[in-house]
Amino acid sequence: MPYNIKIILDSEEEKGSKPLAKVVEENSALLGADYLIISDGPAHRSGNPTIIFGCRGITTMSLTTYGPKFPQHSGHYGNFAPNPILDLSQLLSSMKDENGRVLVKGYYDGIKIDDKTQSILKSVPDNDTSIKKHLMINRVDAVGAYYQESLQYPSLNIRGINSGWVGAKARTIVPSQATAELDLRLVPETDGERLKNRIKEHIESKGYKIISTTPTDEQRLKYPRLIKINERGVTAAFRTPLDNPFGLHLKSVLEKQFEKDIVRIRIMGGTVPIASFVNTLNIPAFIVPMVNHDNNQHSPNENLKVGQLTYGITAFFKLLTTPF
Amino acid sequence: MPYNIKIILDSEEEKGSKPLAKVVEENSALLGADYLIISDGPAHRSGNPTIIFGCRGITTMSLTTYGPKFPQHSGHYGNFAPNPILDLSQLLSSMKDENGRVLVKGYYDGIKIDDKTQSILKSVPDNDTSIKKHLMINRVDAVGAYYQESLQYPSLNIRGINSGWVGAKARTIVPSQATAELDLRLVPETDGERLKNRIKEHIESKGYKIISTTPTDEQRLKYPRLIKINERGVTAAFRTPLDNPFGLHLKSVLEKQFEKDIVRIRIMGGTVPIASFVNTLNIPAFIVPMVNHDNNQHSPNENLKVGQLTYGITAFFKLLTTPF
Repeated sequence: MPYNIKIILDSEEEKGSKPLAKVVEENSALLGADYLIISDGPAHRSGNPTIIFGCRGITTMSLTTYGPKFPQHSGHYGNFAPNPILDLSQLLSSMKDENGRVLVKGYYDGIKIDDKTQSILKSVPDNDTSIKKHLMINRVDAVGAYYQESLQYPSLNIRGINSGWVGAKARTIVPSQATAELDLRLVPETDGERLKNRIKEHIESKGYKIISTTPTDEQRLKYPRLIKINERGVTAAFRTPLDNPFGLHLKSVLEKQFEKDIVRIRIMGGTVPIASFVNTLNIPAFIVPMVNHDNNQHSPNENLKVGQLTYGITAFFKLLTTPF
Repeated sequence: MPYNIKIILDSEEEKGSKPLAKVVEENSALLGADYLIISDGPAHRSGNPTIIFGCRGITTMSLTTYGPKFPQHSGHYGNFAPNPILDLSQLLSSMKDENGRVLVKGYYDGIKIDDKTQSILKSVPDNDTSIKKHLMINRVDAVGAYYQESLQYPSLNIRGINSGWVGAKARTIVPSQATAELDLRLVPETDGERLKNRIKEHIESKGYKIISTTPTDEQRLKYPRLIKINERGVTAAFRTPLDNPFGLHLKSVLEKQFEKDIVRIRIMGGTVPIASFVNTLNIPAFIVPMVNHDNNQHSPNENLKVGQLTYGITAFFKLLTTPF
């Protein structure tokens, strides 16, 4: 083989790969390399060989608003005790417009998509209509003009919300608190700490006092609007330039082998926790996914088509044996 | 005794008294009466003898908004698939201002509080500061200028909300649906069906197609904004005029017996399902509560102070034996 190969098997990828960053930092000499190929994730839905040049990072926040200290009878106190679900709804509403664009000041700062990038994004053989049909939705968020463009921006997703009870368990109360969980998918232009700070500034501008633990009685009586924010760590995004010579080499090897158009994706929506390799060791990274796109990742009936095994073996044999 | 007494024991009051309205309708001759005294609920927190001249009614609605048909990976589809929690938050936000006043058109129509009513409301020895301290809140909704006034209006309370997962179970998804439960406390001026219709018109004005069952694939693809609304029945409010001669008689009997100021409450916030007596049989009704206000109604450590038993026996003995 024309290369020295180092193989990293990460058994904790689905658990956040918490030890990985430290391992990389403490073994930088051992792990140093010229290039990094990651084989996680699915190939493009067209079934064509796919090279992905980056992935979004992630960080999460948990927001809790407060009403009366204990849930109260909605007859006796409805119209008097502030409702924490209304407060939280109004706060969340103020963060995005009705087309899903983030209104938090500075959230999209630094992102520029030039004509060259547009043409790369548009070269991906997506069919937004069929994606919409797959998801069973009529409309889409207006962050990007089309699917690939939407992934070039950080997201601000409300992944869960809970307060009181719904359905058969519903009770006529003014709840005592309401919690929403946010996940922020990051791009290289948008540092996770910066975005979290922008969100906190936005929340403060709406009159909230931010706290990090359950409020004391004194705090409840002192502040008109209290919010508990729990933040978690940041997994950074990465993006390797599409004209990286080794990337062009990978493309040419796959093209020759499979005689198909190679799908080049500038950044994928999900997160692979390999940013420490890219950002700490400065190794240009490429994702060459092997599995089918309809593999029901993380869901019931997760699957791997046998043909994709053959594809993976052939692709990686060629990639690792063709000199650069 | 100077009266013929009919006693109604309702064993299903905590279950919504569903059969009661029918029983009343089918036995109107048997149940006819000149006056109705109800002994449910707590006396005023001052501990003084209390007469309540009405109670708010109630109806409930359940709202469900829809995102992708199945929960989707928030990396792959965050910024593309519409988030049903954002939609629901924006809808709920649009229904009330940040001070808790309902913005739905016509919601407060027909309610007028004249000077005479104001002076009756203000005669109730409430201390809003101590109510706020009891609830551990800094601010209150601005529907009324003070607690008793706030109860003269219908409420629009969000009693529960749920979508996705929060806390340790949080998952990075765009959820497929989000549900909020509303309860509407009614006053005599605001018919429950009318208020529900006003809310539905408001929701439609925000671009929603209202459905009553889980959407079909066809509906998902056809409508940009879908909402499932489940409505439940209406328990009407009632209010007996404060200058009703029998009400004045009750006041005078209690005054003479206990030598204390009688607290007269125009309408209480909660709901007692006796509207069928008042509205079907046209019997003027009065609530003369016996239990202590801090009885932890419906909560752990529900209690009844022994002194209140004595009060109840004395009060009802006098009320039932003093000629009108």
